Amino acid sequence: MDIATIVGIIAAFAFIMVGVQENIGAMLNAPSAIIVIGGTIASSLIMNPLSEVINTVGVYKKSFVNKIPVPTELIERIVGFAETARREGILALEQAVEDGDDPFMAAGVKLAVDGTEPDLIMDILETEVQFIEDRHKLGSQILADMAVAAPAFGMIGTLIGLVIMLKNMSDPAAIGPAMAIALLTTLYGAILANVLLDPISKKLKTYSSKELMTKRMIIEGIMAIQSGDNPRIVETKLAAFLAPKLRPSSDEGEAS
Amino acid sequence: MDIATIVGIIAAFAFIMVGVQENIGAMLNAPSAIIVIGGTIASSLIMNPLSEVINTVGVYKKSFVNKIPVPTELIERIVGFAETARREGILALEQAVEDGDDPFMAAGVKLAVDGTEPDLIMDILETEVQFIEDRHKLGSQILADMAVAAPAFGMIGTLIGLVIMLKNMSDPAAIGPAMAIALLTTLYGAILANVLLDPISKKLKTYSSKELMTKRMIIEGIMAIQSGDNPRIVETKLAAFLAPKLRPSSDEGEAS
Amino acid sequence: MDIATIVGIIAAFAFIMVGVQENIGAMLNAPSAIIVIGGTIASSLIMNPLSEVINTVGVYKKSFVNKIPVPTELIERIVGFAETARREGILALEQAVEDGDDPFMAAGVKLAVDGTEPDLIMDILETEVQFIEDRHKLGSQILADMAVAAPAFGMIGTLIGLVIMLKNMSDPAAIGPAMAIALLTTLYGAILANVLLDPISKKLKTYSSKELMTKRMIIEGIMAIQSGDNPRIVETKLAAFLAPKLRPSSDEGEAS
Amino acid sequence: MDIATIVGIIAAFAFIMVGVQENIGAMLNAPSAIIVIGGTIASSLIMNPLSEVINTVGVYKKSFVNKIPVPTELIERIVGFAETARREGILALEQAVEDGDDPFMAAGVKLAVDGTEPDLIMDILETEVQFIEDRHKLGSQILADMAVAAPAFGMIGTLIGLVIMLKNMSDPAAIGPAMAIALLTTLYGAILANVLLDPISKKLKTYSSKELMTKRMIIEGIMAIQSGDNPRIVETKLAAFLAPKLRPSSDEGEAS
Amino acid sequence: MDIATIVGIIAAFAFIMVGVQENIGAMLNAPSAIIVIGGTIASSLIMNPLSEVINTVGVYKKSFVNKIPVPTELIERIVGFAETARREGILALEQAVEDGDDPFMAAGVKLAVDGTEPDLIMDILETEVQFIEDRHKLGSQILADMAVAAPAFGMIGTLIGLVIMLKNMSDPAAIGPAMAIALLTTLYGAILANVLLDPISKKLKTYSSKELMTKRMIIEGIMAIQSGDNPRIVETKLAAFLAPKLRPSSDEGEAS
Repeated sequence: MDIATIVGIIAAFAFIMVGVQENIGAMLNAPSAIIVIGGTIASSLIMNPLSEVINTVGVYKKSFVNKIPVPTELIERIVGFAETARREGILALEQAVEDGDDPFMAAGVKLAVDGTEPDLIMDILETEVQFIEDRHKLGSQILADMAVAAPAFGMIGTLIGLVIMLKNMSDPAAIGPAMAIALLTTLYGAILANVLLDPISKKLKTYSSKELMTKRMIIEGIMAIQSGDNPRIVETKLAAFLAPKLRPSSDEGEAS
Repeated sequence: MDIATIVGIIAAFAFIMVGVQENIGAMLNAPSAIIVIGGTIASSLIMNPLSEVINTVGVYKKSFVNKIPVPTELIERIVGFAETARREGILALEQAVEDGDDPFMAAGVKLAVDGTEPDLIMDILETEVQFIEDRHKLGSQILADMAVAAPAFGMIGTLIGLVIMLKNMSDPAAIGPAMAIALLTTLYGAILANVLLDPISKKLKTYSSKELMTKRMIIEGIMAIQSGDNPRIVETKLAAFLAPKLRPSSDEGEAS
Repeated sequence: MDIATIVGIIAAFAFIMVGVQENIGAMLNAPSAIIVIGGTIASSLIMNPLSEVINTVGVYKKSFVNKIPVPTELIERIVGFAETARREGILALEQAVEDGDDPFMAAGVKLAVDGTEPDLIMDILETEVQFIEDRHKLGSQILADMAVAAPAFGMIGTLIGLVIMLKNMSDPAAIGPAMAIALLTTLYGAILANVLLDPISKKLKTYSSKELMTKRMIIEGIMAIQSGDNPRIVETKLAAFLAPKLRPSSDEGEAS
Repeated sequence: MDIATIVGIIAAFAFIMVGVQENIGAMLNAPSAIIVIGGTIASSLIMNPLSEVINTVGVYKKSFVNKIPVPTELIERIVGFAETARREGILALEQAVEDGDDPFMAAGVKLAVDGTEPDLIMDILETEVQFIEDRHKLGSQILADMAVAAPAFGMIGTLIGLVIMLKNMSDPAAIGPAMAIALLTTLYGAILANVLLDPISKKLKTYSSKELMTKRMIIEGIMAIQSGDNPRIVETKLAAFLAPKLRPSSDEGEAS
Repeated sequence: MDIATIVGIIAAFAFIMVGVQENIGAMLNAPSAIIVIGGTIASSLIMNPLSEVINTVGVYKKSFVNKIPVPTELIERIVGFAETARREGILALEQAVEDGDDPFMAAGVKLAVDGTEPDLIMDILETEVQFIEDRHKLGSQILADMAVAAPAFGMIGTLIGLVIMLKNMSDPAAIGPAMAIALLTTLYGAILANVLLDPISKKLKTYSSKELMTKRMIIEGIMAIQSGDNPRIVETKLAAFLAPKLRPSSDEGEAS
């Protein structure tokens, strides 16, 4: 559960409500919402293959539920593997992998147990990581493109509203409310882009870089285990991926 | 047939119609359309050689009819060639190529059958791929440039309309409708850019990267066949181009 | 003569006239034109050395008269040189160069005839090409910078017009026409940038890349001739610069 | 204490007050401030992990109190270490490090005293510097993202205010003041972005590059000390990091 | 004296006056000028260390008085040094350097005379050039940042003016003039950015690249002299830095 994402979205709407106050009715207009939300999704369909747009729903949810991986736990786990491999031989790792383990790590360990050539393991896992990175980038990019489309459809809706209003100016009393509705699409476009699309796109980027780092730690760890490294060395190698203050028990290098 | 492109465009206009409602008449104005569409095309003519602008029409259609190549079928086909070459010798491939095959692949196979040096085949095919990539980039770029020009001509049209209106303000009742017409060019420019030009430019980029990937798979496959690789190895090499879950029958590397 | 540039500019103004209709008088205002055109040129003078700004006039004209070099003719010419060199020795090329030939090619041939070291020829010609590229970039960049300055001066003019108008609002009937004139500078700035500056800057970029390609073909050709390559080889080497369908007589590599 | 930051912010508000004059009351509106400041912070929460947003407060303060490191003093200190190491052996440095010293330098000296391999010291310190750089970049980037969000929330607030006003136009006298309040969020967004967020983000970048330079000087110095370099050589090596006029006593290289 | 800078600025203001005509009084408002100019400088203080902002004044003046170095004169001078060194030995250069010479060149010659190792001379001078380049970049960047801040403070001033005006709409006759004053800050911001800041920032970039080229020519020349190159070779090496038509007497390579 990512508290910051949820708190941020709720807070953004709460702060917006400070401006709206009791005028919530004046802010709601179904056609305006349909133009902006529908238009934004439609433009995403034109830009991307259908499957990617559908995928984006899952990607979007990830920004709420993604638990940021705790690298220290991962290091402990890999060091544990290294100890098992040292004591009981690398084949013993087959039993050591558990259901809760990262599937990527499980696959890597299985490759090592099978006696695959180190270079080939490296190749296979690096290719995997490359595809994960590409998939992450695409998900984040689709949301960023939608964050550009939303204000554009907001403006399209406002222009349509203005044209209709200007054509029918016989009743001056109707001008104000008509223009208010016209402006709602611009408002919706701005909120959609600045609360629900662009920030989520950026959060996904942060998640991606953290997840890729753990994948690279796993690769480094498996290579080290396969080459028979001392568990202590494995730990040192993996700790180098972390900021000093996050490192498990390293006494050296505690410079701030 | 690319369903997403067509559905996206139809949906975008449908959502826009939610705002227009019964005022469709107020939204249509031939001179406004001529200024924006004509001006956008004219600016593209100034920017690009004539032949490229004409080419863009064909490129544009491609975003509707392009069937995304199915890489697994391509792998099967190349592995089939590899098996034939293994069993009956590389010369037997001359008969194996069919009319339905990718002409790029056919040309590559012919080069291999002719006993061309591997380095030269590589060179010839890579040069080809480079030109395909450049042509794709240019097509996508022309549409992106038009997506920038369209709102500019929309604004030019609106300014002209406003100037005319402001010069003739004797009849207050005419001001509203005159301004409505002036705004139509801005509206047309925004729709043109955000529905019909920019998203298509982005979809063409996606297509291009997928097509280039299949071309690179073909090159890799032909080089492997010529060097006499085992069909199983050929398949493994080509599968590495795909995301793990798309790979045909590879049991290893199934990490998520 | 570049038909597309001329047709594009004429068409752009024709489409703009569709909006202007019989109100051409309302669109013309000498002071507005002076502010925008003058200000854009003045800002270019501040940005660039005087000589470069003057140079830009010639560069600008080039986008109308530049005939795109026909690379197949160039290949024929170089292959002809290669044949002469083969048959009659490299010294015979001195007579073969004609007045109509590209001066860059003539200089290169002369270097080869003089028996200059290949590395030095390469160096001299590459340096030349580098300077041509820098000069082209600068010309295109100056127009791109002017395309940014034009709307800025358009806005400056409109703000001045608005301030004057707002200070003198005693005669309501004069407000409309005064504001119309104020808007004209914005209109002029938009037309200047989007019809006459930015698209020409982009066309110059296209020309530049085509011209640089022919220069690189010439270098490649002269190096091949000097090293005594077979004319057939020279042709193959140069044909690799062209898109497959443009290549003169190559039967291989006809992949689409 | 960074005088420029504080003077700049105070001056910016003072110059803004020149426009406000006695109308300070008209400029203050609590709900407007809440929308803009709250919305900006909320969007930062959606974009970033919670810990990073909290961190930003400390980073922000740094732009006021950061004393720019004086590299000449640092050079003197390191040269002093080099002299001690020369005279009394490298172990004597353990006593030489003082509490006031840069903790990064203290850690580096400790590594050297412990007889750590030079390559490993290099590795450990470089990794440290890399993390410092990443952390600085992130802090600066969060403020830059907030500088983009602030005007967006300003616009959202203004649109809300306009919609409310347009819906209730029965009392013409209330329109002016209502619109004034609506505009305040845009004003707050502009001030927040252009006085308090974007410039601080840029100042942090400058600090970062200066701090990283001193860290790199420390690494260079420690490596030189460990390899037993003459103090004079150590000084020359470190002086190369400085602009010529800042170098302590170097007589050569005084070119301007 | 850079004529183009001065002529450009005077011309820009002259063209702006074409729009102002006799309404110069309406265009002048001290508080508006204070907000925009003061705010722009204040934001620069927040962004940069105090010393850099002060430095910028000198940098700014440079765009008026900088005489573009004449590289042919420089080549002649260096070739002269080469001849002296050939005839009378390198020590004779000590007397040859004059007060009018570029101090950078004087320092380099002194290093050569002192018999410094070529690699060290190279290092020292390259470091110098690197610092000059960084300093130039910073100066140009500070002006570019101010060119972004000026319109922002223009908008802040206009918003303040609008809010004050909207709060006090009791006297309709006062609305026009009040709004006129409000718009002046936007006008000032646009002029400041587009006439006095952004173009100067770009001119400084051009100067910088020309100055750095002469510095690199000097380094090349000194290295050549120290290694005892023939003056004719020195000249050829330096001429390669120039566009062909600017080269002093080179007969070869005259291709256009």
